[in-house]
Amino acid sequence: MDKFYPNLSAEFERLLRLLEDKKVAVIGHARPDGDCIGAQVALARVLAGRGLDVICVNPDPVPRRLLFLVGGMTFYRTDDVLKNTEERAAIFVDCADHARGGERLKGRYPAPVAVIDHHLSNVGYADVNMVDSGSAATCEILAGVFLDNNLPVDAPAAQALFTGILTDTGQFRFNSTSRRCFMLAGELVARGAKPAEAGYELYERETEGKLRLLQHFLASLKLECGGRACIGTLPSGIYERTGANGEDTEGLVDYARSIEGVEVGALVEHRADGTVKASLRAKEPALRVDLIAARFNGGGHACAAGLNLKTGTENFYARLVDAIAERIAIADAEKKR
Amino acid sequence: MDKFYPNLSAEFERLLRLLEDKKVAVIGHARPDGDCIGAQVALARVLAGRGLDVICVNPDPVPRRLLFLVGGMTFYRTDDVLKNTEERAAIFVDCADHARGGERLKGRYPAPVAVIDHHLSNVGYADVNMVDSGSAATCEILAGVFLDNNLPVDAPAAQALFTGILTDTGQFRFNSTSRRCFMLAGELVARGAKPAEAGYELYERETEGKLRLLQHFLASLKLECGGRACIGTLPSGIYERTGANGEDTEGLVDYARSIEGVEVGALVEHRADGTVKASLRAKEPALRVDLIAARFNGGGHACAAGLNLKTGTENFYARLVDAIAERIAIADAEKKR
Repeated sequence: MDKFYPNLSAEFERLLRLLEDKKVAVIGHARPDGDCIGAQVALARVLAGRGLDVICVNPDPVPRRLLFLVGGMTFYRTDDVLKNTEERAAIFVDCADHARGGERLKGRYPAPVAVIDHHLSNVGYADVNMVDSGSAATCEILAGVFLDNNLPVDAPAAQALFTGILTDTGQFRFNSTSRRCFMLAGELVARGAKPAEAGYELYERETEGKLRLLQHFLASLKLECGGRACIGTLPSGIYERTGANGEDTEGLVDYARSIEGVEVGALVEHRADGTVKASLRAKEPALRVDLIAARFNGGGHACAAGLNLKTGTENFYARLVDAIAERIAIADAEKKR
Repeated sequence: MDKFYPNLSAEFERLLRLLEDKKVAVIGHARPDGDCIGAQVALARVLAGRGLDVICVNPDPVPRRLLFLVGGMTFYRTDDVLKNTEERAAIFVDCADHARGGERLKGRYPAPVAVIDHHLSNVGYADVNMVDSGSAATCEILAGVFLDNNLPVDAPAAQALFTGILTDTGQFRFNSTSRRCFMLAGELVARGAKPAEAGYELYERETEGKLRLLQHFLASLKLECGGRACIGTLPSGIYERTGANGEDTEGLVDYARSIEGVEVGALVEHRADGTVKASLRAKEPALRVDLIAARFNGGGHACAAGLNLKTGTENFYARLVDAIAERIAIADAEKKR
């Protein structure tokens, strides 16, 4: 069979040689998602299977709904590894930037041996740079590279990789979902990945608070820009009232975007300390919601971006509507050209 | 490469020989879903590509969100084909039973040349019976059989088959999601299926009314049976109040089931004419919601069932809770054995 990633798989062989006899830290980003935790668990398992001493490190804890992936792997937080002076070869996964795990983790591991990632903006900041922005997920790259090199992928590693592909493709339906995603998913199922178990853990263990939060968010939805934008608002104190928590906002903004005719969906969250957080989603990359977020010192991707405003939050809703309207006008003008 | 369906693919070759020089009707079931319409469109395209005169027939219209699959294929309703006396070889797809399209369509086509289906209860009621309950979707069977026989699958047929697999696996996460599902999905993407387009058409063209209906349903959710069941209720008149319609109830019951600890989710709908409709979903087949539905003259599968009560609707909610509690007790007792 043809190799999934001929070039990266050769690079991975080089990485394995560099790691011989070393202790390893597999580092993920802040607010880790399924692709980040999946990649950390799978890579740690494969390296541990080769006899290496491996730990995983994250600035934030493993989210509740991803705990099923962890198995016997050890996850440390930033403070733990700052206290400890032992030398470890650092591999950053799913981190577009050396500082995605925070400046303190960057300082603790200033010279990573490798980075494995699929973000467009990743310029390569390690010795071995396995970056492919044509991949839907970091777990897709890892799965392909493991199979290309005939490395043993056990059932927990297969499940971790499968979950990363599942979540970063939005359940196999983002633009990035390729033939290769499906072929690798099939190979991972053959090695013990359980789609139904992943689906249960990710989507069938909601809290009542989460559903109450969704209910409030839906009630708050307003169409703007002639029905081409839809914005939902969470007021300060909503977590106490619904019994939800910050993790539960995940996915809410997709409901705002899901309405026919809506091109940009937004979630605006007012916090008790007066700060404002917003998430933006576009149906088409031409809308460039990263540029809308950038107007408020935020950032992200063309179709998914976010921002955190600590000051200058007056009139935020109206200013956001203006910024979205402006981007829609620019996208319209570009389309006409 | 190994064949996906060695036996069924040989049967399909026999079917193609039987169809030579015949006009064909590809028949689907009432309230058609993505797997039904996808299978009809794909089979009709492949047969039309071989020069056959093919129509599709359904008792109900193609749902709004599946219209993107239809392309140039012709869909007739039951009345249309009852009026017309022309002879057509009938192929039933995704129909567990000869009468799934209604007694009138069964009468119009009393001796089907073939049935292609994946339902467990299908006993085979045609000359050529291509039934495999180990498959997640009728479209999975068709995709495998087309590829096994090297039949040309164009981009619209690939998209139709992909959509059937996507919807009948619940976005690749029901228990039935196998390695073969993913392998076939990959082959279909290689032939022009567009996962992002399917995702957009199916899940990103919601109406405001649908989201308002969801909001009302979420507000109505009640935990029963010590938190092991969750029931949401839609009162009579809800469609007028929200601007939603009957198609929009699809998927609501999944929210009731999605709560942690809940084993059975239910949607109860009170209609203006005094009748009651209910949908039941279980997380585990042991709960046998088909038996709960059967208590009210309904039916279905172990994890997904439904019922329609025209009379004897008094006190329905309490009787439903009792019936669920009884099934939970039986499942508990079976587990202990």
